[in-house]
Amino acid sequence: LVVRSPEAFREKQGIDARVLQKVSEIDLRQKQVQGEDLKTGKTWKEPFDQLLIATGAASIRPPIPGIDAKGVYELNTLQSGIEVRRAMDEKNPRHIVIIGGGYIGLEMAENFIHRGIGVTIVEKTPQVMNTLDPDMAALLIKPLEEAGVKLYLNESLKAFEITAGEVREVMTDRRILPADLVLLGLGVRPNSALAQMAGIPLGKTGGIRVNDRMKTEVKGVWAAGNCAESFHLVSHRPFYVALGTVANKQGRVAGINIAGGRAVFPGVVGTAMVKVFSLEVARTGLQEKEILELGLPFVTAKIDAYTRARYYPGTGPLTVKILAEKGTGRLLGGQIVGKEGAGKRIDTLAAALHAGLIVEDLINLDLGYSPPFSAVWDPVQIAARQAAGQV
Amino acid sequence: LVVRSPEAFREKQGIDARVLQKVSEIDLRQKQVQGEDLKTGKTWKEPFDQLLIATGAASIRPPIPGIDAKGVYELNTLQSGIEVRRAMDEKNPRHIVIIGGGYIGLEMAENFIHRGIGVTIVEKTPQVMNTLDPDMAALLIKPLEEAGVKLYLNESLKAFEITAGEVREVMTDRRILPADLVLLGLGVRPNSALAQMAGIPLGKTGGIRVNDRMKTEVKGVWAAGNCAESFHLVSHRPFYVALGTVANKQGRVAGINIAGGRAVFPGVVGTAMVKVFSLEVARTGLQEKEILELGLPFVTAKIDAYTRARYYPGTGPLTVKILAEKGTGRLLGGQIVGKEGAGKRIDTLAAALHAGLIVEDLINLDLGYSPPFSAVWDPVQIAARQAAGQV
Repeated sequence: LVVRSPEAFREKQGIDARVLQKVSEIDLRQKQVQGEDLKTGKTWKEPFDQLLIATGAASIRPPIPGIDAKGVYELNTLQSGIEVRRAMDEKNPRHIVIIGGGYIGLEMAENFIHRGIGVTIVEKTPQVMNTLDPDMAALLIKPLEEAGVKLYLNESLKAFEITAGEVREVMTDRRILPADLVLLGLGVRPNSALAQMAGIPLGKTGGIRVNDRMKTEVKGVWAAGNCAESFHLVSHRPFYVALGTVANKQGRVAGINIAGGRAVFPGVVGTAMVKVFSLEVARTGLQEKEILELGLPFVTAKIDAYTRARYYPGTGPLTVKILAEKGTGRLLGGQIVGKEGAGKRIDTLAAALHAGLIVEDLINLDLGYSPPFSAVWDPVQIAARQAAGQV
Repeated sequence: LVVRSPEAFREKQGIDARVLQKVSEIDLRQKQVQGEDLKTGKTWKEPFDQLLIATGAASIRPPIPGIDAKGVYELNTLQSGIEVRRAMDEKNPRHIVIIGGGYIGLEMAENFIHRGIGVTIVEKTPQVMNTLDPDMAALLIKPLEEAGVKLYLNESLKAFEITAGEVREVMTDRRILPADLVLLGLGVRPNSALAQMAGIPLGKTGGIRVNDRMKTEVKGVWAAGNCAESFHLVSHRPFYVALGTVANKQGRVAGINIAGGRAVFPGVVGTAMVKVFSLEVARTGLQEKEILELGLPFVTAKIDAYTRARYYPGTGPLTVKILAEKGTGRLLGGQIVGKEGAGKRIDTLAAALHAGLIVEDLINLDLGYSPPFSAVWDPVQIAARQAAGQV
């Protein structure tokens, strides 16, 4: 445990937090869990009245030859981060290949480049950041390449070449890349197998199905965090997202309810942010492909503006894209790529999605203005104005 | 005209924009305006079908002896800004006294200090920034003093000492201050006298009374911008605020409606921002004294947090205060003071006020998170959590 030690849990809160214990089974009939002490090897059983499953998520590791060799890392836990850092310090790698151009891949690319190491990203789809629409993701290509990142899009990982137990090369469907360190950034999936084995229903997303109080479909059993599903407040469908923000909110709600209180977690709108070198990237709501899947008619508006007043020192360009339902004008989503100060504007759109606002409402929002912070019309409102003209 | 010249209006938009014309009377019975060409001195009359009054605001100038002397400036128009700058360049003042500790006073103090000149602010109330609660405004005192600004609170301007037509000293009710340049930052009032003389009703705020389409109570007459009232969406009362954001929105709505379209400007929530040296200051909704006036029961929550993840380079402290209605939990207002990245978080609260959210909703907003931009719980949510515990 990192943020709070088992001792602090015990002394400050009267919570018996046991670490290095692996739970192997949940027995719903007898209302007990079975596990093993990883230090002593002893097995144990523990009865419960209420059970919270918070098993988190695991990195996706495709069954590719050599994936378990030395030199192939993932980044999902603090421990895995420590291991990557140790490899950087001790092995002094010269060629790093990152598999996957998502959040983790791009963030790690930046940090590897800062340490002066050549980085290649292999991404099987035609774009980085698949949570952005292609036109917005395209804004990241030039900055990434200018920073020294080599990008191979539309290219699939096939195998790793291993010598003496260590990775040496990455083979894609198009080329062979030298690699003395490989980082897997292929996303995560919910760690829900333990729950599933016990007979606790999962959703189609693979996450544990919960209601808005974080209760599973089994009496007395709750789930929260990256092992559980969320509800998407824009698509009105179950949704899986593995983010600390969502996990924290779910944990709070589960805790209040388990302790006899009453709290609800209505769901998410799909907000996410990442820093990619000097660019801030943010998205919320539904992107084009999600809206197409739902079959909703929609309009898009995309504008270029500035993070501060155009004439103010330190101002920088940003691009805002807004998606709205045709006919009603209901905001469906938004994406922002731009310089310092751009990204957190996504919060205005996220709040608007929670509230079910239409783009005309966005135009009239009384947002903060002063030349060091914004133009008179905030960029999200300029985009909303353009969208309103098409709705 | 600054942003667009009369020629551009004529050529690009077919609008006959006449400058240096002073309107002396609006004749509602004959549906015409009378005016004077300020260059030729010729008077003229112009009939109208629809009339838009957009006369803006004027600086408040109390009838104090010497206020019209050389060396006493205000800052309300571009021209007045040019005059202050010229005085700085030509007179090279050594002692500047600013009357009023509001937005203009504080922004100008910063700029004078940057030019290496001693600045004294005289403010008659016990605090700077009267749009903040006293406890939040107090956060600005130390940074202002450390930057070299001398602050005299609870002190009233009595007179100016004039020698050879130029200001030399400022006399308050407590002391005499040397001054070779005085800046008045006493706020503005709506320029609504012309409308009032014509019989167009004003509101209690002194602004021209308009409906949500920006129509006055006289058929065919509209008003927009700093001469007009707004409606406050939290207090549900008429409200006067002289800000470019509001003026722009009102102008857009008035224009659409006059041209035969249909648009509404529902109102404002009282958002405002200012940079005070390295601090970002923002407020929205109602402050304590406004809530007390309305007689609403309320709770306050005030928290200290960070602009980015606590451990992230460039993170800085910020303070967020939230006010919510006791019982219902309805958000009533918020105030933020903090380092770079703090201020624009006010937009989340502004959007929440527009949507009528309760603090529990705020806790569950899916706001943007990544360590360069925020902690897992955005500071406005930490404040909301504290408020929710008291509601």
